[in-house]
Amino acid sequence: MSDNPELIGALEERIEAKDALQVSAMLEALPMADRSLVIDRLDDDTQEQLMVLIPPEQAAELLEKMPQAQAIDILDGIDPERAADIIEAFDSDTAADILGELEDEETEAILGEMEPQDAADAREMLAYDEDSAGGLMRSEYLAYSLSATVGLVTEDMRANAEIYTDYDVQYAYIIDDEARPVGVLRLRDLLLSTPATAVTKIMLPRPLVVHHAMEQDELAQLFDDKGFVGLPVVDDAQRLVGVVMRKSVREAAANNVAEDFLKVSGLGGKEELRSMPLVVRSRRRLSWLSINIGLNVVAASVIAAYQDTLTQVIALAVFLPIISDMSGCSGSQAVAVSIRELALGLVRPVEMMRVLGKEMAVGCINGVVLGTLLGAVTLLWQGNMWLGAVVGGALMLNTIVAVSLGGMIPLFLKRMDLDPALASGPILTTVTDMCGFFFVLSMATMVLPHLV
Amino acid sequence: MSDNPELIGALEERIEAKDALQVSAMLEALPMADRSLVIDRLDDDTQEQLMVLIPPEQAAELLEKMPQAQAIDILDGIDPERAADIIEAFDSDTAADILGELEDEETEAILGEMEPQDAADAREMLAYDEDSAGGLMRSEYLAYSLSATVGLVTEDMRANAEIYTDYDVQYAYIIDDEARPVGVLRLRDLLLSTPATAVTKIMLPRPLVVHHAMEQDELAQLFDDKGFVGLPVVDDAQRLVGVVMRKSVREAAANNVAEDFLKVSGLGGKEELRSMPLVVRSRRRLSWLSINIGLNVVAASVIAAYQDTLTQVIALAVFLPIISDMSGCSGSQAVAVSIRELALGLVRPVEMMRVLGKEMAVGCINGVVLGTLLGAVTLLWQGNMWLGAVVGGALMLNTIVAVSLGGMIPLFLKRMDLDPALASGPILTTVTDMCGFFFVLSMATMVLPHLV
Repeated sequence: MSDNPELIGALEERIEAKDALQVSAMLEALPMADRSLVIDRLDDDTQEQLMVLIPPEQAAELLEKMPQAQAIDILDGIDPERAADIIEAFDSDTAADILGELEDEETEAILGEMEPQDAADAREMLAYDEDSAGGLMRSEYLAYSLSATVGLVTEDMRANAEIYTDYDVQYAYIIDDEARPVGVLRLRDLLLSTPATAVTKIMLPRPLVVHHAMEQDELAQLFDDKGFVGLPVVDDAQRLVGVVMRKSVREAAANNVAEDFLKVSGLGGKEELRSMPLVVRSRRRLSWLSINIGLNVVAASVIAAYQDTLTQVIALAVFLPIISDMSGCSGSQAVAVSIRELALGLVRPVEMMRVLGKEMAVGCINGVVLGTLLGAVTLLWQGNMWLGAVVGGALMLNTIVAVSLGGMIPLFLKRMDLDPALASGPILTTVTDMCGFFFVLSMATMVLPHLV
Repeated sequence: MSDNPELIGALEERIEAKDALQVSAMLEALPMADRSLVIDRLDDDTQEQLMVLIPPEQAAELLEKMPQAQAIDILDGIDPERAADIIEAFDSDTAADILGELEDEETEAILGEMEPQDAADAREMLAYDEDSAGGLMRSEYLAYSLSATVGLVTEDMRANAEIYTDYDVQYAYIIDDEARPVGVLRLRDLLLSTPATAVTKIMLPRPLVVHHAMEQDELAQLFDDKGFVGLPVVDDAQRLVGVVMRKSVREAAANNVAEDFLKVSGLGGKEELRSMPLVVRSRRRLSWLSINIGLNVVAASVIAAYQDTLTQVIALAVFLPIISDMSGCSGSQAVAVSIRELALGLVRPVEMMRVLGKEMAVGCINGVVLGTLLGAVTLLWQGNMWLGAVVGGALMLNTIVAVSLGGMIPLFLKRMDLDPALASGPILTTVTDMCGFFFVLSMATMVLPHLV
């Protein structure tokens, strides 16, 4: 097993001894998935020493397979000259992503150490918004002039086969003198034509192009509609600047789902790895918990307002946390359905009334079922029918509130341009707690003589 | 906009009138993403009528773009003969996925209506486990015999260009007389060879193959290691039975993350769409809520055991829900980190002690911070230092418990072969509620004279 402490110890020792060959060989001998795990187990300094020791290409390969937050931490800690060598070994898309996440100062230092042409390319990529076609595209692509022949293209592909293997080539583009794409060449068609054929004969003319500012949602829709694997990206002057691949857009969408998961779990959408420094992990989690403590105190103030009732019917204190937790769960289910439907494009933020109707119906059924259940438990446990009616009735009403609100909050936040995954949970639980406590305690106050 | 009620009304009317041409044209005129939304808004009967009305190929295209649960609902409701026509238009991978999700009876009825060869293929695919290479592979691939030449292969590709477009071809396989794969042909190499060249000259010999039972995790690792876009899948006799694509494995992994999100949100990992029948939506959510109500009652019984203390210090009732909610949130953060690290392969289920150490450290820091915060709030609010100490101290201790447990529960469940995303939440909140209530109330009992 790769989480073998002996292996990690041996690797640490070889890194310490600066034995580059042996370290490279030890890593190569491991399956790729295990390499990330082993490196994760080294301390920060050793990770940085390792990346400096091995060839930049090998370092780039390892860093590309790691969670991005970890790769950035490592690059942040090493000499900019060496970091530049490693970043030059990434493809342009990944290089820009990584450079964009580093501190500005560090990014500048690294760009200063890169080959002038590579640095200029990277700066260009960095200027694009991360979620736009420009941010998702890669600047490696095949382009030939209008005068090219099939023979010339295949000749070029043969000569540069090594380099092009990394390009993930499916199409070649034909560009005019102003670098504007005027045609697409499918590899398949090259295969079926004689060398003397002009590319203009077999290219598909007037290719669909996307502007670099097109957003990820729109790109995803376009790929769904048209079924292409890649699309040429153009600048304001309609010049070809890159190619955006369907799989990059899909990957970005998948990452968004994963981010939503972290946000809903109170981790603010930032990836946390246990190998990160304790202070970072603790601080990130606290930033959300300390807001939550405030919201909790607000909600609990409703209880404080009914201390007289509580003093007389102390059994109510047993049921307050139950009402709070159950309503939170019912509401969270509705929140999750809305976040998912928003992500899948099955609901639009304006359709709040439709969602309200749908959720209210579920809320009523589930409210009646859960209220009756809790009411019966209360009756059996505490032997007071009135108490059962109060507790069950409160849960019933509050389930309807929680489910309806849970369905609508994400749509409302989306309309306000706020992040549904981040804010829906806290808003939901604060409101449902307040309502829930109010329902139980005000109803109890009304029938107080029957409860004492 | 496509959520325009007029458009939906017009479509309904044309479907009612069985005007197939007009309906097809109306749908074709919409962007693909809007088609799913429009169909989602039709009632169940109309959806089914629509799929019967339009050509099977168009129906298949629409169904493939929908959330799977919805596609299955629709196919379930239409005539098996028609459903068979539609399913024959899917690729083999999707067809098997859909048939596998239908009721057994319905599956048999549809298979009975399919072309014998297609039905036999589908049955074969159905026999594979969904998360294995067999379940993820497609049975459409290009295979040629050892005696083939480049000319014969390109001739065949030209002749069948229409069919092969759907195959997403990157490689062709060379098989021996027993159908065992003995070589791989890259399209690139076909391009660079003369027609008379024997395929054995340019094929890469002894290709890497995977057994149909290889599991998704292992496949993902293999694709990461080797960088192929597809791998041939073989049966027990080493015969080629399909090709598994890297993107299918990635998609399956992304679906698993999305499923985890639904599980953590108390939706049992099943997709819920608001267009599903009310009873189904309500029942699914209730199945988890009714377990939760039981767990809540168990946790609350701790409060009941301390009714005497509560009666004397009614202010404690205000803080019980706060302790419960805050501990739940702290623990959920740790659960999310563990679920994610497990999914990324950055932690193994046996490493419980490592996780315990890491989480305990975060728990101590966050416990001290949050405990001090809540203690101070309590002191200011209720004006009793002892009460502040009890409430703050309890939250401090319980945060350590919640964070440590939250980190370990997913690993423990994984070792027990249970689903961490499904069960971690309920187990965590029940235990932390019990501990939290116990800490507050037992400490309050100890210093009771200072609180009253």
